[in-house]
Amino acid sequence: MSKARAEAFSDGVFAIAATLLVLELKDPLAASGHLLEGLLRQWPSYVAYATSFATIVIIWVNHHAVLATLKSLDLPLLFLNGLLLMAVAVIPFPTGLLAHYLQTGPPADANTAAVVYGLSAIAMIVAFSLVSLYARSRGLMQAEFNVVAFSIGLLLYPLATIVSAFSAQVGLVIYVLVALFYIALPLARKVG
Amino acid sequence: MSKARAEAFSDGVFAIAATLLVLELKDPLAASGHLLEGLLRQWPSYVAYATSFATIVIIWVNHHAVLATLKSLDLPLLFLNGLLLMAVAVIPFPTGLLAHYLQTGPPADANTAAVVYGLSAIAMIVAFSLVSLYARSRGLMQAEFNVVAFSIGLLLYPLATIVSAFSAQVGLVIYVLVALFYIALPLARKVG
Amino acid sequence: MSKARAEAFSDGVFAIAATLLVLELKDPLAASGHLLEGLLRQWPSYVAYATSFATIVIIWVNHHAVLATLKSLDLPLLFLNGLLLMAVAVIPFPTGLLAHYLQTGPPADANTAAVVYGLSAIAMIVAFSLVSLYARSRGLMQAEFNVVAFSIGLLLYPLATIVSAFSAQVGLVIYVLVALFYIALPLARKVG
Amino acid sequence: MSKARAEAFSDGVFAIAATLLVLELKDPLAASGHLLEGLLRQWPSYVAYATSFATIVIIWVNHHAVLATLKSLDLPLLFLNGLLLMAVAVIPFPTGLLAHYLQTGPPADANTAAVVYGLSAIAMIVAFSLVSLYARSRGLMQAEFNVVAFSIGLLLYPLATIVSAFSAQVGLVIYVLVALFYIALPLARKVG
Repeated sequence: MSKARAEAFSDGVFAIAATLLVLELKDPLAASGHLLEGLLRQWPSYVAYATSFATIVIIWVNHHAVLATLKSLDLPLLFLNGLLLMAVAVIPFPTGLLAHYLQTGPPADANTAAVVYGLSAIAMIVAFSLVSLYARSRGLMQAEFNVVAFSIGLLLYPLATIVSAFSAQVGLVIYVLVALFYIALPLARKVG
Repeated sequence: MSKARAEAFSDGVFAIAATLLVLELKDPLAASGHLLEGLLRQWPSYVAYATSFATIVIIWVNHHAVLATLKSLDLPLLFLNGLLLMAVAVIPFPTGLLAHYLQTGPPADANTAAVVYGLSAIAMIVAFSLVSLYARSRGLMQAEFNVVAFSIGLLLYPLATIVSAFSAQVGLVIYVLVALFYIALPLARKVG
Repeated sequence: MSKARAEAFSDGVFAIAATLLVLELKDPLAASGHLLEGLLRQWPSYVAYATSFATIVIIWVNHHAVLATLKSLDLPLLFLNGLLLMAVAVIPFPTGLLAHYLQTGPPADANTAAVVYGLSAIAMIVAFSLVSLYARSRGLMQAEFNVVAFSIGLLLYPLATIVSAFSAQVGLVIYVLVALFYIALPLARKVG
Repeated sequence: MSKARAEAFSDGVFAIAATLLVLELKDPLAASGHLLEGLLRQWPSYVAYATSFATIVIIWVNHHAVLATLKSLDLPLLFLNGLLLMAVAVIPFPTGLLAHYLQTGPPADANTAAVVYGLSAIAMIVAFSLVSLYARSRGLMQAEFNVVAFSIGLLLYPLATIVSAFSAQVGLVIYVLVALFYIALPLARKVG
């Protein structure tokens, strides 16, 4: 399989999943004359939107880094990549749930939504780890790979998911921090 | 027609159709405090989502294999390819129907939805066969082509569609198995 | 402007507009146990879907042919191309209207919807003509261009639009025939 | 990071955001037999659609110009580009709000919607400026850059946003004029 077409298809799914997130931003349908209050009450939607968008961009940057080091792609790798894309493409669903129930739901439902969000993040990072580990084990990857960054995600997302079962708000804070960490990490390393 | 642009357009349709599937995953609108039960009751949505996503990735992998062997594309091939893309792009519609009626519908409606799903799968595999056969007949294709894999799909999808008319659940099981078969087949061949 | 990126952006819009058409296919929300009848009553949706999908593929094939002959793109051409893409991207809207009102509307509304569909087709073929004429006038285009095919579209779409004001059904038939004509024309020329 | 993949991902987001705008064009749900009046009353939707589509095409053209002059992309630039894409991808949301409340809302809500539209335009031009300034400061950009055009956007969008707080209609006129200015500017310079 040519790397070019695998990248084109993957880039397409990443770009579309990120852009579809906007469909979860909805008219608040506030009482007439109170659109501003309605929009402000929707703050969880904006936080969830920005976090999910940033998460997809981060995964895309890392996906690019992995594929750039590949000499070739074989079929198992293609299907593992498909698994990763499925986890990425599903993100708008838990993002919408989390935004909606943080805003209007009873705490039990908000926590459920935050747990679902965490499960989708775990699915994504596990699929990404499988892609990377398989590529390494088959000698398809040429460059060294950053194990530390992975392990942190593999630890923090399950942690945030467990915390979310008790408090969606605290869970959301961890999801935001993980995204910021993954943006800050490569920047810091560059400077350091 | 340059192969590059035909691939870019096709990759776009495959990627978008796969990613649009997420719009069929909906808030279950459960009673307050019962989001978890509502999400669990929606299991047919998740099975349908994963099956359709996997089916699109499989068709994309095979589409790539066919185009990779082509020396060039002529106009009839472009229009046959357009037919295939139309069948792929429509998949979110029967997927949504199947998920919805497996969950809430009376058996008659669930069976109808499963038959529609099967018809769309048949349209897809027939269009794909036309693309491949035309390319072969015109000598546009260079490599050998796997006739067995095709014939199995051409047999199993109509079978699953007929079965679906009597039981949507059994039909869905066959759709899942066909997808798994198409993932397992090339992997097994590689090892074997 | 590099041709490659103009093609990538255009291919993206064509592919997305074609794939978004599926969102106009909706659950018929028939009475319980009558999904089949509900789906069959929706036949205008399927005709409109197939016609619009085919129209976008046709425009994409021709767009490719024009860009393939270009030596370069300048800014006016980029903006004319943007106008064409806007006309293409809007197609799901009149498609949805036409499908809906052919099915449930009084004749007056169905005719209105068919006229709107025609106006969007006219906008598309006019924008496409502007792109082609500008490219020719500036000597950016290398190959000869098929004026006959254009003129037919420039005649038939306004005709169908006028007819639609009196009968949406007859209008739809002409829209279908124009699409079939544009598929048949290059195939016939090849054989001839 | 290879420029090619950054361009492919960016082109994807631009193309999808532009094409998703069509989902904000909705069936007016007019009384039976009054579809035409319903569609005509929706004029703010068409103005908002065309303005946002044009704005995205303009940003895309300029984005291309910036990336074309880059020798390479580093990580901070990738994340700044991600910020820009987030601002672009969100445009369908304020576009939908503006179209809806210009049509049905009390003036207070229409003004709120027009302010939100302006804020999203400001976010976009600020992110674009950051991308350009960072690329220049790091010597990644080879060509000269048009500072005047930027400054005008950086002045006019905040101005339009402030005006919108008092009159959504006047705000919309400025948004349209800014888009027309950005189309006319490069064309005029070419001729001049």
